[in-house]
Amino acid sequence: MLQLFIANKNYSSWSLRPWLLMRELGIPFTEHLEHFREGSNWEAFRAFSPTGKVPCLTEDGQVIWDSLGITLHLAEHYPQVWPSDPAARSWARCAAAEMHSGFSALRQHCTMNCGIRVALSNMPEALQKDIARIDELWQEGLHRFGGPYLAGAQFSAADAFFAPVVFRIQTYGLIMSAAATAYCQHMLALPGMRQWYEDALQESPREPAHEQEARQAGTWLHDFRRQPA
Amino acid sequence: MLQLFIANKNYSSWSLRPWLLMRELGIPFTEHLEHFREGSNWEAFRAFSPTGKVPCLTEDGQVIWDSLGITLHLAEHYPQVWPSDPAARSWARCAAAEMHSGFSALRQHCTMNCGIRVALSNMPEALQKDIARIDELWQEGLHRFGGPYLAGAQFSAADAFFAPVVFRIQTYGLIMSAAATAYCQHMLALPGMRQWYEDALQESPREPAHEQEARQAGTWLHDFRRQPA
Repeated sequence: MLQLFIANKNYSSWSLRPWLLMRELGIPFTEHLEHFREGSNWEAFRAFSPTGKVPCLTEDGQVIWDSLGITLHLAEHYPQVWPSDPAARSWARCAAAEMHSGFSALRQHCTMNCGIRVALSNMPEALQKDIARIDELWQEGLHRFGGPYLAGAQFSAADAFFAPVVFRIQTYGLIMSAAATAYCQHMLALPGMRQWYEDALQESPREPAHEQEARQAGTWLHDFRRQPA
Repeated sequence: MLQLFIANKNYSSWSLRPWLLMRELGIPFTEHLEHFREGSNWEAFRAFSPTGKVPCLTEDGQVIWDSLGITLHLAEHYPQVWPSDPAARSWARCAAAEMHSGFSALRQHCTMNCGIRVALSNMPEALQKDIARIDELWQEGLHRFGGPYLAGAQFSAADAFFAPVVFRIQTYGLIMSAAATAYCQHMLALPGMRQWYEDALQESPREPAHEQEARQAGTWLHDFRRQPA
């Protein structure tokens, strides 16, 4: 039995990846949501995760940590985690791995906060470069493998890894190419993405550090969250 | 035919990972070394790598990028990339993935510079935490799977991913547990690690940004590189 530990759906981009992967592929799991708590996440999360971070998966007592470690573990039993075509599979793995270790400017300047809309106060060169690379990568995958998903006709882990970027594009109104914009719309309409977003809006606990990051990013245009802080 | 693009052996921790993996597992490949150049790496490296970064692998015209993307591609054809025991395999993948996206304080404060020895000028809390986690993780693997490698009796991608940490421990004289220290000594004695280290010492081009990072880290005790800057 798979149990997935995640944090606040409004903020936790790393949690979204394996959650959406399992949800869209119909892999049964139980969700354990542990809210971020100010200043002491690491200690609290160490109770279930060796890194003190989310996501973390357990299977019959075995602990599987890290979003990509979880993905690779699942792929052994669920081959549909990656595309069946070898070239698409290799590309999808590289794309997911690039997201896993890269795009630090996007992470820093556009923290995931699903429920709000923000006009960025500035667009540093490193952020522009990250966005341009994501757009290029997405267009390459969509063109080469025929869409509507990044690596072909089926949802794969490549889409799961870029799902938080889709929410960031929506939150910060980032301008993308027509192909990338259509991909975002396709992703936002997925049942798993809609459920995650709705859950994020309903979530009442707020975590000051994440809120502060979003405050510093720019001017808040809307806050669609149902529970006022 | 596999062709691996890497950068300066003295500095490029990401390059070391797939290079050592292929070298230790006897996977034949051709090495292409492109030196870092001041201020224009990205543009120059884009000629062969879609991310403008190293490492990058090509196989019969197919481009495979990112150290973990390369590792996962190789694992399809060379199952010895990961341990054969399922529990060890899952652990090894999680450990490699944790290294791939984590340990930012170690990367920042202890830049890889194989040929020098440095007394750190300070030890920030985040760096201490990274080192403690690596020591804990290594001890867990060595104890659970019996050593001498992180996930058992055979060298695997988990060792390749932590190989740059082994050089960092040597360069900065980081104090580790007895088990972790013995593991470092075992790793440093591998033919692939010895060859990489010797090549790093012989390398004459220096890259100012990497040299500056190492200057800021602390007091240089030794510079064993054969070619003065």
